[in-house]
Amino acid sequence: MRMYDLLEKKKHGGALSGEEIRFMIDGYTKGTIPDYQMSAMTMAIYFQGMTDQETGDLTLAMRDSGAALDLSGIKGIKVDKHSTGGVGDKVSLALAPLVSSVGVKVAKMSGRGLGHTGGTIDKLESIPGFSTELTMEQFIRQVDGIGMAIMGQTAELAPADKKLYALRDVTATVDQLSLIASSVMSKKLAAGADAIVLDVKCGSGAFMRDFDGAQALAKEMVKIGKHAGRKTWAYITDMDQPLGYAVGNAIEVIEALDTLRGGGPADFRKLILTLGARMTVLGGVAADFDSACALLEKQLDSGKALQQMARFVQAQGGDPSYVLEEGKLKPAANTLAVKADRNGYIGAIDCAEVGMASLLLGGGREKKEDVIDTAVGLRLHKKCTDAVQEGDVLAELYYNDGQKAAEARARLQAAFHITEKAPEAHHIILGEVEG
Amino acid sequence: MRMYDLLEKKKHGGALSGEEIRFMIDGYTKGTIPDYQMSAMTMAIYFQGMTDQETGDLTLAMRDSGAALDLSGIKGIKVDKHSTGGVGDKVSLALAPLVSSVGVKVAKMSGRGLGHTGGTIDKLESIPGFSTELTMEQFIRQVDGIGMAIMGQTAELAPADKKLYALRDVTATVDQLSLIASSVMSKKLAAGADAIVLDVKCGSGAFMRDFDGAQALAKEMVKIGKHAGRKTWAYITDMDQPLGYAVGNAIEVIEALDTLRGGGPADFRKLILTLGARMTVLGGVAADFDSACALLEKQLDSGKALQQMARFVQAQGGDPSYVLEEGKLKPAANTLAVKADRNGYIGAIDCAEVGMASLLLGGGREKKEDVIDTAVGLRLHKKCTDAVQEGDVLAELYYNDGQKAAEARARLQAAFHITEKAPEAHHIILGEVEG
Repeated sequence: MRMYDLLEKKKHGGALSGEEIRFMIDGYTKGTIPDYQMSAMTMAIYFQGMTDQETGDLTLAMRDSGAALDLSGIKGIKVDKHSTGGVGDKVSLALAPLVSSVGVKVAKMSGRGLGHTGGTIDKLESIPGFSTELTMEQFIRQVDGIGMAIMGQTAELAPADKKLYALRDVTATVDQLSLIASSVMSKKLAAGADAIVLDVKCGSGAFMRDFDGAQALAKEMVKIGKHAGRKTWAYITDMDQPLGYAVGNAIEVIEALDTLRGGGPADFRKLILTLGARMTVLGGVAADFDSACALLEKQLDSGKALQQMARFVQAQGGDPSYVLEEGKLKPAANTLAVKADRNGYIGAIDCAEVGMASLLLGGGREKKEDVIDTAVGLRLHKKCTDAVQEGDVLAELYYNDGQKAAEARARLQAAFHITEKAPEAHHIILGEVEG
Repeated sequence: MRMYDLLEKKKHGGALSGEEIRFMIDGYTKGTIPDYQMSAMTMAIYFQGMTDQETGDLTLAMRDSGAALDLSGIKGIKVDKHSTGGVGDKVSLALAPLVSSVGVKVAKMSGRGLGHTGGTIDKLESIPGFSTELTMEQFIRQVDGIGMAIMGQTAELAPADKKLYALRDVTATVDQLSLIASSVMSKKLAAGADAIVLDVKCGSGAFMRDFDGAQALAKEMVKIGKHAGRKTWAYITDMDQPLGYAVGNAIEVIEALDTLRGGGPADFRKLILTLGARMTVLGGVAADFDSACALLEKQLDSGKALQQMARFVQAQGGDPSYVLEEGKLKPAANTLAVKADRNGYIGAIDCAEVGMASLLLGGGREKKEDVIDTAVGLRLHKKCTDAVQEGDVLAELYYNDGQKAAEARARLQAAFHITEKAPEAHHIILGEVEG
């Protein structure tokens, strides 16, 4: 078999066989197929696409390019969640304790962030003592014991995907649906869960700008999940403005805790209830979505979800009083307000600019080596469709460096677009793709 | 400027500016743009194509990637010829002496062959003493003096093209018209002639299988020539069967000498008269094609073209008696015949198989390092549309190694397709693209 012939085949619109795809991915992982042939292939795939069968085969070949996690030591159904990412996306922080509080097993590998805010691990590290450095054995034992654990990604899952993504990133071939979907799913499948719920973000702050694109991606990923024999369900959710009000690290944990306490922003509560109910059904704990939803609402409002969060934090070395005592976890003490310069309605909030403001404060990483200041961040006071008067506070910045704050404030100010007419209402759940 | 942005632009069907193309080619030549970005670009070009402006700009950028030849020291108009290559293509051997015998200046850089037969240089080296190792100064002086010279390619012309072609060759992006045309023309332009006549081969033995493809390539190259301000004219000529009767090295020289003596195969004589007459017009020696043709016919039939060949061979250290004394230059002494196995007509001669037979005899190179046996080769006795009787000799092999000859004979036998009905007549000149 020769990579050249596979290139000719794909160039002319042919479908690669499972054997051919495995030859290609194995060779690329080992380095016997060079970057320049693989980048020509991804460009050919951009133009010719891949069939469902090819996309599924590519995903499995990438999944198998490294060691997969073996979660068989954990009793019960393990359910994972994946988000395509956005600004203020603190879902995992609240969702994992919520669903594991009713018996769904959540064994999560997570990464550090690169870009506007930290990753789930960076956010959790704002709780004193908390650590994600677990051995595989500790990880399995903890999930089996208290129902959940979050560890830093140690084992390299799907190394072929990592290598291929880096190549696509520099050859303008990231934006191809089958390649995006197989990239996400290869890692999720390697992470070993029995069922997967996908949160596909849609809007100005997401990779997929419009609903049709997000839905197509969701369908592609659900098909791959089926191809691999895993229960997979996807939601298309709004990312035309930041999720909730908090953007940063500690400040996002605080908002997640508020929500686990039965409060929190309406959009965020609705989102974790929706994703959580689906995980609960797929996890075999509830018979249907509505009863799962009712069950989870009770967990939030009774404080049981918060207690599960405290249990989880303590199990990983953190001080549970920061979870249980409202107000104990604090953002940076210095604040600066962004105010409305006229009357009207919030027509749009530019997610990229909000994320940039958080990054400028020190809450994200520009380079891998950067150290995050978990205390800084920002809190929106107004969101889309809210009426505002001139002088109203639109958002507050929490900072440790005055110079950075001034720059961030200007970016944040520019992120708010005030319109004269009231804009249409936003909905957090835009659609779903059934598995 | 970033290569990434150029990839995005081309991927979406945009046209690259001259500045962008120069950035890309300069960067690729220097190595600051890696192979994997360039191969993604060539694949994007395969799908999106290039405008005439882009193709012209690409050609000029590649031409300028190394030193171009400076032929300004030669008086008169320098005219070059390029063939897209085929089996039995001995055109340069006869054409250069023919047109230089009437005053057209021919300063030719030539290469060695890789594949079925040798290149022009390999063929000429079958004449004892002949050498193509000239200094640039000797080369210029010889063309200025006797009107023609052929030297081995020393200076690297258009190194960007060499690098890019090697990349296209392994990434299945050779077959894109603008890329083929710019590759040929960048080298021709760097070789410094004032006018260029192109011989675009068409048929089973050529890169372009059908007339439409060959014509499109011819048009593309003529447009590039105009873009670069050089007079350029193209002919589409038949390569559905080998050119002339001889395939090999010494044996092709012998056929070229026969033709310069006023004899030779009809198709070959017609081809060099056509290409030569056009070169003579572009070289300013004749006012129109027909008078040029008549002039060149006289040169062939009077022996003046042969005398010019002898002058040229002598100037480059060769023994002119091999040119002037008919029969002095000889192929290998051992012969083996291929005979018709039934009555009928020659319906087709598979060029690839004929070429392979010559290669197997030792007349071509499989690898760059291979040493050619210039004495071996083959001579067709029958060509397409000829009537044959069972037992008629179709071709003769000239060999030095009996084992190789047996293998070559089987290939050559299989190359002949005998049909019951007389096939349509072949024409050597199929079309032209005016400059």
